[in-house]
Amino acid sequence: MGTTQLETVPEPKYWHLRTVLSEALDSEFTVGEVLPNERELAARFGVARATLRQALEQLELEGRLHRRRGVGTTVAPPRVAVEVGPEGTAWPGPDDDTWQATGSDLSAPPAAVATALALPRGTAVHVVRRSRVSHGQPVAAELLYVPETSVPDLPASDTPSGAARARAVLRELQHLDLTARNRSVELGSARADDAKQLDRLPGAPVLVVTTHFTTPARIAALSVATYRADTCRLTFGESGRVEIAEGVG
Amino acid sequence: MGTTQLETVPEPKYWHLRTVLSEALDSEFTVGEVLPNERELAARFGVARATLRQALEQLELEGRLHRRRGVGTTVAPPRVAVEVGPEGTAWPGPDDDTWQATGSDLSAPPAAVATALALPRGTAVHVVRRSRVSHGQPVAAELLYVPETSVPDLPASDTPSGAARARAVLRELQHLDLTARNRSVELGSARADDAKQLDRLPGAPVLVVTTHFTTPARIAALSVATYRADTCRLTFGESGRVEIAEGVG
Repeated sequence: MGTTQLETVPEPKYWHLRTVLSEALDSEFTVGEVLPNERELAARFGVARATLRQALEQLELEGRLHRRRGVGTTVAPPRVAVEVGPEGTAWPGPDDDTWQATGSDLSAPPAAVATALALPRGTAVHVVRRSRVSHGQPVAAELLYVPETSVPDLPASDTPSGAARARAVLRELQHLDLTARNRSVELGSARADDAKQLDRLPGAPVLVVTTHFTTPARIAALSVATYRADTCRLTFGESGRVEIAEGVG
Repeated sequence: MGTTQLETVPEPKYWHLRTVLSEALDSEFTVGEVLPNERELAARFGVARATLRQALEQLELEGRLHRRRGVGTTVAPPRVAVEVGPEGTAWPGPDDDTWQATGSDLSAPPAAVATALALPRGTAVHVVRRSRVSHGQPVAAELLYVPETSVPDLPASDTPSGAARARAVLRELQHLDLTARNRSVELGSARADDAKQLDRLPGAPVLVVTTHFTTPARIAALSVATYRADTCRLTFGESGRVEIAEGVG
């Protein structure tokens, strides 16, 4: 994948080094192995420390390396495939093992969320926090914004926050007649609170999955889920049943 | 979105600056406006140049800023929503305006692609190159790997490469009985040839969309499409027709 082609733009030095290092990772190192320190690597490849660091950052962004203070640089395992289709984001149900509700409160959402939910600014909504664990690793932190009108039968509570309250809101959501889930994926960076949940530093690259849960009448809830970009590959199953049904009908 | 919370991990200096700058972009600048140079910005916010640069890189990663040699740093427009559902990746057809076939050749795919297609290493496949333009901007560069057995009726040709050949392969693909398109999205970095097509430097962050096109018998084609992560937000429409049909049936 890292071949140079004749007609392409000239490669920066660190990019060439990244390609060489990438091949070395394939042939000489095993998953979890600690790489030599920066000084040794720079000497081995005959490059400046700054160039080496750029190449290592690049390989970290590509999920090939993990870098941790105190541990050093290790060879990363292949990325984990995390399903982001209907099955992967179900509200609690049979296959909800990997999501955990961690808290809930009533508060005003960010302006962009209020606009999407067609709410006047400052209107409080249920903000449910969930975290997702896959293969024993934290992979996502989610904020789910639920207008009070979407859960009209939610029992009143003396403790309107906390994990139990979050689960109550999620239970009520299952009564909604959802007709579509519109998702988008974009590159972002972890905010401080998400970073903590994901065991990363603030600013680490993340894949932000925004989902609009729609009923025939309106957008009933909005989820902003932040996935670790270094360890996750998001998968979207698209079964062809719709096309087959059309052919049969 | 950039609020500081009491119980969070301490914020690095550049991250705090990123939040302050982000608010300044909202309140003081308009889309396309050129920011003051680094020296002036560093002085205004009382930070070192290195800290400023980290914050600017962060905001570029988040799609808030564009940085170009010779032009300087400008305020980016909102990201473009690019559909990556069945409609957005159709082989040539009524709504294929945004995809353009740029070339094709017969060559051995990378080892990972050969494995996915269940082909012995070194088996040549049609490699169709396409580029995608949205709102006048290049947004994606795609390599589509098509085994010869998937297009058995492809006419023999004296010119087995080039854009005309690419279109011929794509036309033949429309005869396939596809039952599923399995997609994944992950963070990557632009290879030199993709970077050129996308008007970026090698190593620029990209969203890599891998699609397995499946027939009842096997994986008939595999696409690796590289989307600009700075300007694109990928959307996945998921109609709820399947659920409704279940309820009706």
